[in-house]
Amino acid sequence: MDIIGVSVPRIDAVDKVTGRAAYVGDLEVSGMLHGKILRSPMPHAVVLKIDTSEALKLPGVVAVLTRDDLGGLDPFYGAVVRDRPFIATEKVRYQGEPVAAVAAVDQSTAEEALDLIQVDYEELPVVSDTVEALSGDGATVHETNLCNESGYEWGDVADAFAQADHVFEDTFTFPMVYHYSMEPHAVIADYSNQGITVWSTAQHPFLVREDLARMFGFQLHQVRVVVPYVGGGFGGKSYTKLEPLVVALSKVAGRPVRITLTVEEAFKTIRRHAARCTVKTGVMDDGSFVARECLIHLDTGAYADNGPLVANRAAQRIMGAYRWANVKITSYAVYTNSTPAGSFRSIGAPQAAWASESQVDIIAHALGLDPLEIRLKNLVARGEELRPGTRPLDADPATGLRLAAEAVGLSLDKELEEQELPPPMKTGRGLGCNISGVGSSPTSTAIVRLHVDGTATVFAGTTEIGQGSRGVLAQVASQELQVPMEQVSMVSSDTGVVPYDRSTGSSRSTTMMGLAVQGAAKEVKEQLLELAALHFDCPVEELSVIDGLVMRGGESVTYGALIEEEFGMRAGELLGRGYVTPRRDNGRLSQAPAFWEVGIAAAQIEVDTETGVIRIPHYVSVADVGVAINPQQCEGQDEGASMQGLGHTLFEEMLYEDGQLLNPNLVDYKVPTFADLPDDLETIMIENHDGPGPFGAKGLGEGGIVSAAPSVANALFQATGVRIKDLPLTPERVWRALRDAEELSGEQGNEQGGASE
Amino acid sequence: MDIIGVSVPRIDAVDKVTGRAAYVGDLEVSGMLHGKILRSPMPHAVVLKIDTSEALKLPGVVAVLTRDDLGGLDPFYGAVVRDRPFIATEKVRYQGEPVAAVAAVDQSTAEEALDLIQVDYEELPVVSDTVEALSGDGATVHETNLCNESGYEWGDVADAFAQADHVFEDTFTFPMVYHYSMEPHAVIADYSNQGITVWSTAQHPFLVREDLARMFGFQLHQVRVVVPYVGGGFGGKSYTKLEPLVVALSKVAGRPVRITLTVEEAFKTIRRHAARCTVKTGVMDDGSFVARECLIHLDTGAYADNGPLVANRAAQRIMGAYRWANVKITSYAVYTNSTPAGSFRSIGAPQAAWASESQVDIIAHALGLDPLEIRLKNLVARGEELRPGTRPLDADPATGLRLAAEAVGLSLDKELEEQELPPPMKTGRGLGCNISGVGSSPTSTAIVRLHVDGTATVFAGTTEIGQGSRGVLAQVASQELQVPMEQVSMVSSDTGVVPYDRSTGSSRSTTMMGLAVQGAAKEVKEQLLELAALHFDCPVEELSVIDGLVMRGGESVTYGALIEEEFGMRAGELLGRGYVTPRRDNGRLSQAPAFWEVGIAAAQIEVDTETGVIRIPHYVSVADVGVAINPQQCEGQDEGASMQGLGHTLFEEMLYEDGQLLNPNLVDYKVPTFADLPDDLETIMIENHDGPGPFGAKGLGEGGIVSAAPSVANALFQATGVRIKDLPLTPERVWRALRDAEELSGEQGNEQGGASE
Repeated sequence: MDIIGVSVPRIDAVDKVTGRAAYVGDLEVSGMLHGKILRSPMPHAVVLKIDTSEALKLPGVVAVLTRDDLGGLDPFYGAVVRDRPFIATEKVRYQGEPVAAVAAVDQSTAEEALDLIQVDYEELPVVSDTVEALSGDGATVHETNLCNESGYEWGDVADAFAQADHVFEDTFTFPMVYHYSMEPHAVIADYSNQGITVWSTAQHPFLVREDLARMFGFQLHQVRVVVPYVGGGFGGKSYTKLEPLVVALSKVAGRPVRITLTVEEAFKTIRRHAARCTVKTGVMDDGSFVARECLIHLDTGAYADNGPLVANRAAQRIMGAYRWANVKITSYAVYTNSTPAGSFRSIGAPQAAWASESQVDIIAHALGLDPLEIRLKNLVARGEELRPGTRPLDADPATGLRLAAEAVGLSLDKELEEQELPPPMKTGRGLGCNISGVGSSPTSTAIVRLHVDGTATVFAGTTEIGQGSRGVLAQVASQELQVPMEQVSMVSSDTGVVPYDRSTGSSRSTTMMGLAVQGAAKEVKEQLLELAALHFDCPVEELSVIDGLVMRGGESVTYGALIEEEFGMRAGELLGRGYVTPRRDNGRLSQAPAFWEVGIAAAQIEVDTETGVIRIPHYVSVADVGVAINPQQCEGQDEGASMQGLGHTLFEEMLYEDGQLLNPNLVDYKVPTFADLPDDLETIMIENHDGPGPFGAKGLGEGGIVSAAPSVANALFQATGVRIKDLPLTPERVWRALRDAEELSGEQGNEQGGASE
Repeated sequence: MDIIGVSVPRIDAVDKVTGRAAYVGDLEVSGMLHGKILRSPMPHAVVLKIDTSEALKLPGVVAVLTRDDLGGLDPFYGAVVRDRPFIATEKVRYQGEPVAAVAAVDQSTAEEALDLIQVDYEELPVVSDTVEALSGDGATVHETNLCNESGYEWGDVADAFAQADHVFEDTFTFPMVYHYSMEPHAVIADYSNQGITVWSTAQHPFLVREDLARMFGFQLHQVRVVVPYVGGGFGGKSYTKLEPLVVALSKVAGRPVRITLTVEEAFKTIRRHAARCTVKTGVMDDGSFVARECLIHLDTGAYADNGPLVANRAAQRIMGAYRWANVKITSYAVYTNSTPAGSFRSIGAPQAAWASESQVDIIAHALGLDPLEIRLKNLVARGEELRPGTRPLDADPATGLRLAAEAVGLSLDKELEEQELPPPMKTGRGLGCNISGVGSSPTSTAIVRLHVDGTATVFAGTTEIGQGSRGVLAQVASQELQVPMEQVSMVSSDTGVVPYDRSTGSSRSTTMMGLAVQGAAKEVKEQLLELAALHFDCPVEELSVIDGLVMRGGESVTYGALIEEEFGMRAGELLGRGYVTPRRDNGRLSQAPAFWEVGIAAAQIEVDTETGVIRIPHYVSVADVGVAINPQQCEGQDEGASMQGLGHTLFEEMLYEDGQLLNPNLVDYKVPTFADLPDDLETIMIENHDGPGPFGAKGLGEGGIVSAAPSVANALFQATGVRIKDLPLTPERVWRALRDAEELSGEQGNEQGGASE
């Protein structure tokens, strides 16, 4: 049997369509209270006094938690820097920061109690602009506004720029965006003196376990983080978020407490970094890139969260997929008085690729080169080092880029015969390309249980956030064990039950957890072979495993029969363990990154020059997946990433005014809908069997988001000659740019925009 | 560190005393309905017609289940014989048999709906007496009333009786008794097309899984049986009980359903076998036993449950702890129209020991021998075979019996100087002794997870029914891993989570699961040593594990540091597996029984000859435990068994009249209370380090119940000269016997009662 490469249906499909799938909000815990959070209306203020006495008098209120109820508990946590208190201490740093929390017998009582809490604030000046924030003048969010500085430098950029035929410098901005998972964050916490159990929407339950153990004074075996079904993650549920607050509230209340955030509250929990990227590139006449210098300002909001890592990744990823002899990248994560920013599908990459790939297009047009040709000329080839000391490129971006371009009608060989559209419509085509070294650490473990009827249960701590990991991992186990998929069950994220997995993110699960599951299945198979050797009284070498049987020549024995023989009755089971560690990866993962993930897109767009509305008749994304274990789900992942990328390209932006978030809801914050789907949304998969994961697979799911914005903006330029350097490309912004260009063209004749030689 | 032999506190103590411990009745499952069962008022009847239409009209009723809703499902199940339908089909066989079940939004609605179900019955004659039942005349419960015939025979009893100096024949009866766990049976079932999840009070969740998978057409990986805290088992929750009914009701309702039985319903679910034992023993003048012939009638009630195995065990155990050259035992399990009988702490043994040990006392007194002396003369010695082909005796009953006797003032060496009590009080002392080959199959597996902070989680599928298994298994893991107890957490019965364990019963868990846990801990230690060998760059042989450190000479490294080294960061964990199978037991378990469990008791009683009330100033039980891993908990187990034994000795009896159970409640069915505790309740532990379990331990918990009745009845005889052969020794029965004896003595002078030479 061969189930690799087969598009088996999602194993959670029936649960999800019938509503049986239970999310945190569906769970009931005996004696559970309901919590609500009082959030700061001020973006930046000293908290003078909190009076909870009236709230505590309200019948049905069991407990109120404020800074005054911590009892020596250190409320600070953070994935990189422990700068975020789960409940405000001396001051608040963004509008929406939790100041108090109420646990009551029901949600409406808790909500009512919030109004009875009196908080006195002393307002402070608001920090909002990242460049100003670093100027040294004005207010600071923390002791300094500089959260992190990352960078890369090699060669001599100054010298290279001096030698270059052309130097381009452009500044691009990328908006603050929100993940908009279907399910906002939700946590049930049950604190006792013996330990903590938490049911959470956490993507990285083992890291949450570590934080909770440290913060509340427990050891790892005393903390259990259970993750039921999760309605989307995208990085918004990476690391610890709401959990410590709910645990502390449970501790104060002496009972389990559930808090489910509203969408508005989730907007005030985590977002993607807005960015300002200045890119300076030196190029020779033939289009060869010689040097790149970048300055990146990332708005990390009020607390660091994963900001420092995002700064680092943005610094890497702004180099694009190109060969550079001279590089100087500086990337700042800057504190501002806004929702903290953290992980979001391919951290730092959409911001970086937006700047990098827009400028490549600018350069091509300025030099009169084909945008595909200039990319192919500078692309790092398969097997080549993208940055010094990294794993040789295990992807084929040149082929991917060619395929994407051809799919939308761009080709080096023949001039596109563009059918002109009737006014006011114009059409254009654009490309985008990036490569990310995934930040996947080789730290996964798994267990496979083979039951006496030959069916199996796989313990794999990957969080199923909708990406289909359970199915893919079941396929891996099914293939390795040679038992049909429907005989494999998955047990997912529950730190009390499944063995360690570092995290669900960085496109890592198919590779890292896939290898762990494969390893565990192999260990089961080894035992089956040992038992079969006893059964047939022959050496293991004479045996093989095929289709759920151990074979010796023409003879066969079922797994179940072997287990029954071992246990002397219909009883027992076999257990296999899989470890993925830097040591035990067979050399496949030991060099960073674990693998490279391409992000290649090509768009054909239509723009209504009277309204500025962009439609996308054809959009192509390339996923270089090694092997597509489940092709349909790979496509689903990639299409989802493309659509999310088109969201920040065309619509999405969190808007702040004086530190107040203006649009934390679906009415005012527009995400793509089915009506916005490209008529033809296509994923091209490249399968070179070159991934380090099981059966030659590698991860995907992040690449698809990376090149959406530049491919569309580059198409817009091709269509209209207008270069827009700020996202999103809303009708208003496009319309204004077209109007401005028309006015400029009226004033100055026909000049090509964008290049600043 | 050495934690074996240390009376550490129960690890569930705080949960239990604070009420945090959640039982099935405390659990909430999203969307859960509440179920109630309509039970037959008839003990034996044809079910003509069931009309549920009115019940289904009641608002709040979601579903009603009867035989008419099975849709092809085979409702029959049974541990040995599949003769019990979870819902009555063509007829009902005992009063209380489930005929219909209702699932409704709350319990009161479900209860109300029961009254609206109309059932028409055609009454059948009631089978109640086991001897009559086998006569071939009259009604039959099933096609025949003989459920099972078991037996043992060797030598030539007829010849031996002819050669014997004396032959004694007595008939004893043992009452129907109920386990009276604090918590009656309770089940939540959640059926879907993908599988079944059940939360149950099951002692043997893996066997329930097997039954449910078979009955409902699933594979093992699709069925999950979760057992939370359980309020007592004693065998009453062995095998499948309420689960299929609740699963079927959930299937019909399309939602999860919970049914929690009342005490009365639990009385109508399972009980211990009543018994009638005729024992014929040939003895020489010096007290040597030469032959034994027994006929045992066990009342197995309406369905077989574990009856056939009980019949077999009773047949074994009626031989006592004695050497027999000639044996012929016949043991019948007989169907009657009463609550089905099944497993109960030391199946078949209290019934058998009651008969056997009462008769030994009769023989001793008849021959003028000391009751201790005659026992010691015939006892099987340590290392000797109790029955042909069995494991040599790994216990020392002679020492145990001597110690017990001495403790209550019985001794071969010196005549007891009995202080006479003022009338109407009399005092006496008696002994009882039995040995059971435990029915523990070597079929346990376990997993140990060692976390990066050096703490551990142990997965062991033993059901914690109050016996303290979690703590003992944690001690085993703690000792083997060399980490403190408070750094070990236990995950218990949940077939979806923990690996296979056959059952929780037969005193097997400390031995079987103990070895599995020890094996898993050893496998973790082996890995630690391998990692330490890399760390120190030395051969494994130079390393040792002490107090949570791996040592090489004076150098040491923590477990956590080794795991961090392996995973390259503070991450990961090590996994160990433990298998106990007939092959992998290192020869320790391969011969049946796995070990021998003694049941030795000595009682000093006081009887009020005017009222018949028996008080017990001093009661001693001997537990031959190999090693007491947790002495206090061993004592607790043994004392509990003693008290449960004193229950059926003095008070307990389920009373039937015309097939109607008269006393299914605490008012009418008296169990021992604190006021009935012996003034001095003592457990003597024998620790010869000769058990096959971890660190030389073996099981206990059943032995203590076995000899309660004969030791008290033998003491009563010593005190009063009155021999009672029927239990319980209620004041009325004792008073009547004393009165009858007085009348008899008045008529016939001073004749010794009981012996029938």
